[in-house]
This record gives sequence, C-alpha cells and structure tokens, in this order.
Amino acid sequence: MSCNVLLALNAGSATLKFRCFLPGSDVALAKGLVDGVGRGRAHLTLTAADGSVLVDQPLGESGHAAALGAVLAQLDTHGWHPVAVVHRIVHGGTRFRQATRLDTATIDALRELSSLAPLHQPVALAAIDALTTIAPDTPQIGCFDTAFHTTQDPLAARFGIARHWHDRGVQRYGFHGLSYATIAHKLPALIGPDAAEQRVVVLHLGSGASACALHQRRSVASSMGFSAADGLLMSTRPGGLDPEVVLYWQEQAGMNVANVRSEIYKRSGLLGVSGISADMRDLQDNDRPEANEAVELFCYRAAREVGALAVQAGGLDHIVFTAGIGERSTPVRRRIVERLSWLGFQLDAAANDSNALRISTVDSPRGIWVIPTDEEGQMAREAAALIPA
Amino acid sequence: MSCNVLLALNAGSATLKFRCFLPGSDVALAKGLVDGVGRGRAHLTLTAADGSVLVDQPLGESGHAAALGAVLAQLDTHGWHPVAVVHRIVHGGTRFRQATRLDTATIDALRELSSLAPLHQPVALAAIDALTTIAPDTPQIGCFDTAFHTTQDPLAARFGIARHWHDRGVQRYGFHGLSYATIAHKLPALIGPDAAEQRVVVLHLGSGASACALHQRRSVASSMGFSAADGLLMSTRPGGLDPEVVLYWQEQAGMNVANVRSEIYKRSGLLGVSGISADMRDLQDNDRPEANEAVELFCYRAAREVGALAVQAGGLDHIVFTAGIGERSTPVRRRIVERLSWLGFQLDAAANDSNALRISTVDSPRGIWVIPTDEEGQMAREAAALIPA
Repeated sequence: MSCNVLLALNAGSATLKFRCFLPGSDVALAKGLVDGVGRGRAHLTLTAADGSVLVDQPLGESGHAAALGAVLAQLDTHGWHPVAVVHRIVHGGTRFRQATRLDTATIDALRELSSLAPLHQPVALAAIDALTTIAPDTPQIGCFDTAFHTTQDPLAARFGIARHWHDRGVQRYGFHGLSYATIAHKLPALIGPDAAEQRVVVLHLGSGASACALHQRRSVASSMGFSAADGLLMSTRPGGLDPEVVLYWQEQAGMNVANVRSEIYKRSGLLGVSGISADMRDLQDNDRPEANEAVELFCYRAAREVGALAVQAGGLDHIVFTAGIGERSTPVRRRIVERLSWLGFQLDAAANDSNALRISTVDSPRGIWVIPTDEEGQMAREAAALIPA
Repeated sequence: MSCNVLLALNAGSATLKFRCFLPGSDVALAKGLVDGVGRGRAHLTLTAADGSVLVDQPLGESGHAAALGAVLAQLDTHGWHPVAVVHRIVHGGTRFRQATRLDTATIDALRELSSLAPLHQPVALAAIDALTTIAPDTPQIGCFDTAFHTTQDPLAARFGIARHWHDRGVQRYGFHGLSYATIAHKLPALIGPDAAEQRVVVLHLGSGASACALHQRRSVASSMGFSAADGLLMSTRPGGLDPEVVLYWQEQAGMNVANVRSEIYKRSGLLGVSGISADMRDLQDNDRPEANEAVELFCYRAAREVGALAVQAGGLDHIVFTAGIGERSTPVRRRIVERLSWLGFQLDAAANDSNALRISTVDSPRGIWVIPTDEEGQMAREAAALIPA
C-alpha cells in the first residue's frame, strides 16, 4: 500500500526524530529516531503506530544528511511518500509568528537568527539544507518554538538592559512553544471550555524544563528567556543564573565562552547539583542527600516560578504538568504542589499516583492536571494549512 | 563639649558616607558625606541631627584615605571622638554571620572574599586599611550586607550549577541585609508583635533594589543572588539576566569582562530601558513612552518577585516598602500593589498618597506598609555589643 504523508522532523545535535502523519491528521502513522548522528554510530529505528518495530538498522558514520537520506529511503520502502516536510525550529525571532513555508528568503532569515541561538539553530538549518539537496521538490515548512510566545505581554519579553540590545534581538523569547500550543489545543476538551480560558500555568518538565502562564489559551509570560538555559532547573542546565557567575567563571577559573557554554548546557542542572545523574528517575531512587537535594531544588525552583508567573498572569486557576517528568513523576508533582497549597491547590494522592488527568481533589479550589504533550502532533496541525493540495 | 562616638562608615566607589552615634544608641548625632572621592573634586559635608550644616568643605584631589582623614579632623574639631568605627561591608561570605571585630585575621579573610565581589569589597577594604594607618588604636568593626541572609533556606542559596562551584563560594548570598535587618527590628513596634512574625515580603527599592521574604523576622529567601546585579530591575542594573546574554555580548559584540560589567552596572536598569534617566522621579514626570515602559518594567518585575518569594515563604501576609523609591514613590507602590490585588492586597489611595505607615485599606485581607530603612542605625545596633567599655 502506498500513501502520501506529512513528515515531521525534529533535528537535535546528535539525533533526528521524525513522525509520519496522514496530511490533515495529527495522529501519527509511524515514528522513528536516528541517534548517534555524527558520532560514528548512527542507528535508525522506525516504529509503526501499533508499536511494532519496522526498521532497526545501524547506519555507521552518518551525519545529518546521510541520516535523513536513510530515513527517506526507509519511508519509501514502506510506501510512505512525503508530500511535505515540517521542521521543528527553535528560533523564529520576532518575525516568524506561525508555521511558515520555507523558501530561499525565509531560510536566509532563519540563518540570520543563528546568532541568537548558536547551539540550536544551525542544527535545524543543516536538516533543511540536507533535505533541499536530497529532495528539492518536496515543500518544507517551519514550526517555531518561539512562535506561541509572540502573544506575551511586551514587558515579559524585555530584559532590564539598554533598549538598543532589545531592538537588536536580545529579548526574552520563550521556548517549548509547540508543547504549550499542544496544551492550549487540548485544554477545552480535557478540562472544559470555560476552565480552559482561565489562568493556567503549564509546567513543561522534561530534560529541558520551562513554565508558561496561559490566559485565554494564549501565552502571557514564560520562564525561558533569551536562551533555553534560563528559568527552571533542568537535567543539565542551571536555569536562572546571576550574570556575575559567568564573569566569575571567566575571571577566576579561566573559562572562555565555549567552556562556559559546556558548563551551562552539559554540567549543571540535576547532574551538577547531585553529582550523580541527569535523570530524575535515578535521583528519586537514590538515597544520597545530594540526590534528594537536586530533586528538592528542581521542585523548589519550579514552584517559585509558578508564583512569579501567577503574578504575571494576574492570578492562577489551574496548573498543568506535562512532558517526561511532568507526566510521570509522582513525587515531583507532589513536592511542587505542596509548596503551592497556600494558593488553593490540593493534591489527590491516589490520582497523582496513577498519573490521572485530574490530580486535584474534588474540593480543591484550583485544578491540577496531567496532560501529555505532543509536539509533533502540534507540528502536523500547524503545517496542515500549508501542505499543497 | 567633647564626647565619645561610634562612627559608622559606608564607603562607596566615589563616596564616603558616615554617621556619628552615641555608643549604645541608634539615633545619629550627626551625619556626613564625602562625594567625588578619587575624582579630583571631593567635597565634605557634615550635618547635625537638627539639619544644620556644620561643615561644607571642598577637599580637592582626595582618595579614600585623605577623605577619611578630613572626616576625622572635622569630627575632632566638633569634639566627637570615635571610640570605634563600624564599616558597612558588602560581602561576609558564609563565615561572617554577624557584626565582627576586625583584626588582621578577619581582614585577611575579608580580602579573600574579594573574588566574590570584585567591584565592592575592595572599596570597604580600602577604608579599613586607611583607618588602620590613620588611627591604628581605634577598634574597627564590620557589619555585613550578607549576614542577615545566612538564615535563608539552603535551597535559596543554591544555584543550579555543579556542586564544586557552590562549595567554592558561588552561592546566592543576598544583599541589602542591613536594610532588611532594620525592618525586622522595627516590625513589632510598627505593625504589632504578632503580625511581625508572619510572612512578610520587604521590597527595598532604591537605586539598588531587591526583595526579601521574612518569616518570624528572619530571611527566608531574597532576590539578589551571587552579586548585586541579580533580581529586580534597578536604576542602572538589569536584575535577572539570561547567562546567554553575557555570551552574546562577548561573541557578537566583542565585549570583554570589563565591558560586560560596565553594561551591567552602569548602562542597564531604568537608565538603559528608558534611554532617559536612572532616576525614578525623572521618569515618573516624563511623558515619553520609553519612560513609562521603564517604570512599568520596574513595577512588573518587582511584583513578579513578590509572587516568587511568597512561594518560597509558603504564603504571604504583608508587604513592606522601604528605601528611596519604596518610601516615597506613590505611583510605583500603586502599580506594584495593583498586580498583587488577586493575593488580597488592597491599597488605600489616600494613605498611599501621604506615604502613611499603613497604606492598605482597613478591609484589606493583607497588610501593606511603608517603613523607612536605617542601615546606619542598624550598624550602630549591631556594633553596640562590640564597642570596648
């Protein structure tokens, strides 16, 4: 059987995640991953919607272009023909406020944004460039992690620095927008149409972590700033950091910009604080005080941000937990909600233990919810209108 | 008439502020200022408690040592003999948790902390060294802006970075401690002994600005971190800043560490955002949208921090405004409280306009207060027990 699909691509520094959708649908037919890209041990897996493994293939020394070629060849083997490819792109700056068809001019504009996201933007551009070479006639679409936040309060986007830097692009953009857009999309059906329009703080807690205040299902403010290193504690990133810490590292420890970035993106967060693991599951199972301290700091910082975002939204009616840790870690949710009980959040312990949709008690003045994110499904929804008929 | 006094010294980069107290009293007999220190136009003023100007004297090309010598000479002329000098010292690290008699060993320990506060610590040390030379037999005492925060929740002191940095001193210390200690001292008499023990967020809004959550009159958490550049928007400092902004400045704008420090301490904050003035009074009187935006951002960020600190304290019963802007800016207090009305803070407009002690309405579920700070009076109180009989 042969059919047209929309291919959603999410290129990371050493990974290429993808899903296939029937055009117009946000339910995936198949999903896959190439990991070890550019590390001499690339490996492709392709899995059908029912979970059956269709492909499990070592690719050897593959960069992003070769990995992408292998993915397209396997899709072709299975009769899936991409009529369009939609890319997840971290940074859309202030210009890209919705999913956009990529052509020479828009790709150039995205390339100019690389100075704002030097670690992440080039990876998406490499995938776009590779696809342009391999399949020049396949339309490409960009979806942006920043786009959902372009409705933010202008004050939320501004740092306390000189105006000319803001005008040059040094702004608080916010990220994880595809995840927050997913939650905003799902809210009416899951918590009710009226409740969905209230003030909601969404905690996206994965290896990257951020929080976003929604009002009327639009982003009001978020915890990530100029980069994906700001805000909450993450697996290996510190979240909010005094700028003098960067200068201390440079002056007192002789670190250069690249060293500082390694420290910020690879050696901080749960890993750095615990000295044990970047994985929340490992830390929850570990009895050492350093492990507990890392988990406590993660929860403390997340709860603190909820309080700040509630002020930015002018109040708070609901909390939503999403992403890996948010959807599955019972103790993390419990510890965060305990710190927010004075705001009227009462946890139903049994519902929390079973990862139920609603985890607040029936009497709780405010709602607490667990809603799975679906960033690729959101990409499919956003791209739908841009797929050629 | 001749009498013994305690001399309280607050040395800034180009200023030397001082007050004279009767030993054991926290009411100043006289106060004074040398400004333009080290800038070729030093000028000494000395004012009596009744406001009469006792000295108004140009000192010409004076550094801190010459300025200090001139101050001591003038005090001697007026019959005031310092039996001890108490210095305001920004950084006490984790070791100095209360006012401390300064000797060779403690001064060496303070010198070692200079790497943690490279802009501010050397100034206080210069004043200490100068006094050691000029008046070697006069006992010296140090009071620390960090000391009041040593009761903080250990989680509040920790950044999300690798443990070994924390152990080396890269911690969130918090500053303005002498101001918060003043408020904690005054609270029982001004708002009542029971209310004083509740959860209080103090907003110290001056040219430097920070916020501190108190519970049972002890510091629980504060907005300033490793340095005095973190947290709230200030006159010329940005407050919370994504660390990638520092790296952007270095990579994309060719700035070095000194340039970044100038940007952070001199060209950001109200001045940078408005492009008009670092002075809140100027901005409130200015109709340009940039002026209003700077004032709005100042209030928005302060309110945001109140929400975060409330979570860290586990609730919130009172807000206290203090320091120059906090004690005198009616519109700033109004705008901040408006953003917190959902937490039960109701402003009495007339009381606010008159800078009354209590500015919340009689019906307000939570209290809002204006309490003058008195950092030098706090120094006198803290030093009292250490003055030789």
